[in-house]
Amino acid sequence: MKGILLFGHGARNPAWALPFERIRQAILATDAAALVEPGFLELMRPTFAEGIDTLVGQGATEIVVVPIFVAGGGHVNKDLPPLADQAMTRHAGLIIRLAPPVGEAAPVLAAMADYALNVVPFE
Amino acid sequence: MKGILLFGHGARNPAWALPFERIRQAILATDAAALVEPGFLELMRPTFAEGIDTLVGQGATEIVVVPIFVAGGGHVNKDLPPLADQAMTRHAGLIIRLAPPVGEAAPVLAAMADYALNVVPFE
Repeated sequence: MKGILLFGHGARNPAWALPFERIRQAILATDAAALVEPGFLELMRPTFAEGIDTLVGQGATEIVVVPIFVAGGGHVNKDLPPLADQAMTRHAGLIIRLAPPVGEAAPVLAAMADYALNVVPFE
Repeated sequence: MKGILLFGHGARNPAWALPFERIRQAILATDAAALVEPGFLELMRPTFAEGIDTLVGQGATEIVVVPIFVAGGGHVNKDLPPLADQAMTRHAGLIIRLAPPVGEAAPVLAAMADYALNVVPFE
């Protein structure tokens, strides 16, 4: 069974995690049976490992990690692959695949551009 | 005249700036006369101040700063406002307004959720 791990940087303010919960809810609104959890690199829980473990506990055997990052950088290209390797070592038979970061996806970029053009800012 | 400053964190790898250029091009594809420039907090140029100065040089009198961040955090809530204040002090009459970060916009979140559900990851 497929699972989705929303991989984020993490921050000190708990409110920083809200977009992750909103993405999760939007996924569940499309597919109520989807297995989808957040997992953070630092400063915030669940950690990447905790998110993976939750998905495995729910029955996931193949997990797609989706970096919720503006662009690929050190966190996506260097920090993430060893975390995935460690999780696959910890869970025999688990397959983890890494997706490009959301900020490099054309429809996401288009939505950001549209937002930038039309946003009504704080006064 | 209105200008748009795409505010990003910045990173060591120049490729990190590519999504910003793609957002800029998407905005120009919709409105060829738009004044839109990137501006980074650190590690990358143009800096926030340089981006603002370019927009002012192009004739912008009112600039909307759009944080290209997944969520509001210290960089958006604490680092950004003083940068905007300094720029308004430097340019008499310039108005700068701050928009919520892209990652908190409903259409962007929806695009991210759709991407996460349907992405074909690296094998």
